[in-house]
Amino acid sequence: MEQLSSTPVITLITDFGLSDPYVGQLKGVLLGICRQARIIDISHEIPVWDAAAAAAMLHTSYGFFTPPAVHLTVVDPGVGGGRAILAATGGGHFFVAPDNGILSPLLDGGLIDRVCLVERDEFFRAKVSPTFHGRDIMAPVAAQLAQGRELESLGRKIPAGDIVQLPLPQPVLAGDSLQGQVLRIDHFGNICTNINEKTEGFDSFRFGGIEIAGHRIAHLSRTYAEARIGALLALIDSMGYLEIAVSRGSAADLLKVLPGDPVTVQLRRS
Amino acid sequence: MEQLSSTPVITLITDFGLSDPYVGQLKGVLLGICRQARIIDISHEIPVWDAAAAAAMLHTSYGFFTPPAVHLTVVDPGVGGGRAILAATGGGHFFVAPDNGILSPLLDGGLIDRVCLVERDEFFRAKVSPTFHGRDIMAPVAAQLAQGRELESLGRKIPAGDIVQLPLPQPVLAGDSLQGQVLRIDHFGNICTNINEKTEGFDSFRFGGIEIAGHRIAHLSRTYAEARIGALLALIDSMGYLEIAVSRGSAADLLKVLPGDPVTVQLRRS
Amino acid sequence: MEQLSSTPVITLITDFGLSDPYVGQLKGVLLGICRQARIIDISHEIPVWDAAAAAAMLHTSYGFFTPPAVHLTVVDPGVGGGRAILAATGGGHFFVAPDNGILSPLLDGGLIDRVCLVERDEFFRAKVSPTFHGRDIMAPVAAQLAQGRELESLGRKIPAGDIVQLPLPQPVLAGDSLQGQVLRIDHFGNICTNINEKTEGFDSFRFGGIEIAGHRIAHLSRTYAEARIGALLALIDSMGYLEIAVSRGSAADLLKVLPGDPVTVQLRRS
Repeated sequence: MEQLSSTPVITLITDFGLSDPYVGQLKGVLLGICRQARIIDISHEIPVWDAAAAAAMLHTSYGFFTPPAVHLTVVDPGVGGGRAILAATGGGHFFVAPDNGILSPLLDGGLIDRVCLVERDEFFRAKVSPTFHGRDIMAPVAAQLAQGRELESLGRKIPAGDIVQLPLPQPVLAGDSLQGQVLRIDHFGNICTNINEKTEGFDSFRFGGIEIAGHRIAHLSRTYAEARIGALLALIDSMGYLEIAVSRGSAADLLKVLPGDPVTVQLRRS
Repeated sequence: MEQLSSTPVITLITDFGLSDPYVGQLKGVLLGICRQARIIDISHEIPVWDAAAAAAMLHTSYGFFTPPAVHLTVVDPGVGGGRAILAATGGGHFFVAPDNGILSPLLDGGLIDRVCLVERDEFFRAKVSPTFHGRDIMAPVAAQLAQGRELESLGRKIPAGDIVQLPLPQPVLAGDSLQGQVLRIDHFGNICTNINEKTEGFDSFRFGGIEIAGHRIAHLSRTYAEARIGALLALIDSMGYLEIAVSRGSAADLLKVLPGDPVTVQLRRS
Repeated sequence: MEQLSSTPVITLITDFGLSDPYVGQLKGVLLGICRQARIIDISHEIPVWDAAAAAAMLHTSYGFFTPPAVHLTVVDPGVGGGRAILAATGGGHFFVAPDNGILSPLLDGGLIDRVCLVERDEFFRAKVSPTFHGRDIMAPVAAQLAQGRELESLGRKIPAGDIVQLPLPQPVLAGDSLQGQVLRIDHFGNICTNINEKTEGFDSFRFGGIEIAGHRIAHLSRTYAEARIGALLALIDSMGYLEIAVSRGSAADLLKVLPGDPVTVQLRRS
């Protein structure tokens, strides 16, 4: 068995936080199997049990890693119950996650080629805790993939379409307006929406303004720096999504919006 | 001198937090001596000066790393005073920590074979700050151990029983009840207790219920998932300890308990 | 092109926090170019847009890393505007940062030998977001430097004195007193000042007391441990700066000071 590369990369997304021993234990297990791994923390601050947030984090991050890379995502409120564990591959990337929708945006994006159930327990830790499959099942399997083990050796192949799909909110195009919603507030107070450059109907050349929380933003900016300090602005963020921001300030503090709140984009007749 | 392995692992537990330059400086010193080291953060969020919390974190984490590994734990309120610094080994693991009880659960667990004082200053940084021995003494010594240096070269060997012992609260068996206490609240709001599978008198087959904060939990669950959402439950956690949880909720928020609060397990006659 | 070393070290200082995908994306880009890099997080908790805090963090940290090392600092409120991006070297270290003053304390300290503008886009990511030059320009360039690429290949050389200087507050010597200010509160509640061992006029042998927030501290301690628990004390911290602390307590909580508040050191006639 050949390693994926001489320095395999394993990324981590979890809802574990950084105060408990859980992340460290999981990394110990990874290194015990794949001592050469470069382990990269994407985030351990996913809101607890929020598979949709983990899915979004994975979807917007994996592509910045050069394949081959293994992406382990553990947000697993159903641990120990009936949910399956998945290993998947596509585009030279490998993914390990519980089957709770974490992989569904990747599937929707056409990335996933093959999906297997993680079920052959010879790859698990000798003693599996019913409450921490991330450490005792998913980490050993991710490390095996980093070592070059074949996906199909982990368990039965299943049709990619059979995995659990998250009902992620999609923007709705109605006449000349596009109705989306707030997805996330970032560390800077920027308001991240679910409308992106590829959303049907969206076209920055037809941009006719945004309405959010009783405010209207007439123009689409290119950068934060082009607005005067303190001004509300909208731009396409570094991942291609429509973002509402305040130049050197917090749009979330100004607008008091929350994830799920509506955002409307007006489109001009082209 | 041979390296411990071609990619030595050094784990870190501190109370430094992540906002200051202290963790980065310490890692710079480690890499300056052992460039090949894989440095793994277990946690830098130990409550400040809480040697008992650091001891528990170390005790529940080191075993998930495949030896050889070096575990550096810096929670050091006595820095610059009279406390000694220890280097110890057992089971293929190496440990460096101030002599304030951090290593005592490992000693109680029978792991520690040999203990040396860290006193030969040829291994320290050229200039030692009286307020940051973690960076200037313990990190260089940990890196030397990762490089394969002999424990005994660091200073005088002492009897393992001479190290400072923490007065860790132990569960008390009285008739048919086992009186323990809350140790820690985790990131999910789970209540971690000091009663574990090996506690004298504890036996899941004799489990007759738990009392905590005026609530009673009749059964021992196997997983979070088997309780209905919002229900209070008790289970053996992934490290073998009795834990009180709420299915997809926070037991700590529900019960308002704090570390040190009592937990009582009733035992049925066997 | 030779790598800087067989395991190049790249350190990171940002204001990104740890909840968003930004740090992970940036690391993915680094590893895509320099797979062997040891990436060390110094801190991602710089207050947002605070170039002066980033400058201080870099200034007090880089020296603990053994050269060669590449230090990437991304606190970049002017991203997408007219500010330049700099690559600099000195003492075997390499630095990449926006030209907003982050490098100015290094220049003042006499470290910087050569500075180049980062302008040759063949080293950038193929698509550069106007809002995330840290990921799309600075990370690829830092990784190129780690790979051994010549500084001068990145763009035009400029005089080091041409970079943006931060107006960092300097202590003022007036007769027998030295007027400084609070720079930062650390994780332990220690109060870090801008007066250090090398400040003109400061001399621990002439130390005649400190005044801060209506309190007076008569003596300079060597360690936290030498004061009784709860006592206010002053000492020279592990980076050479004057610090006000409380033995096993928080000086910041006791004195309620904030960054920018005055600190006065009295000096005895020598």
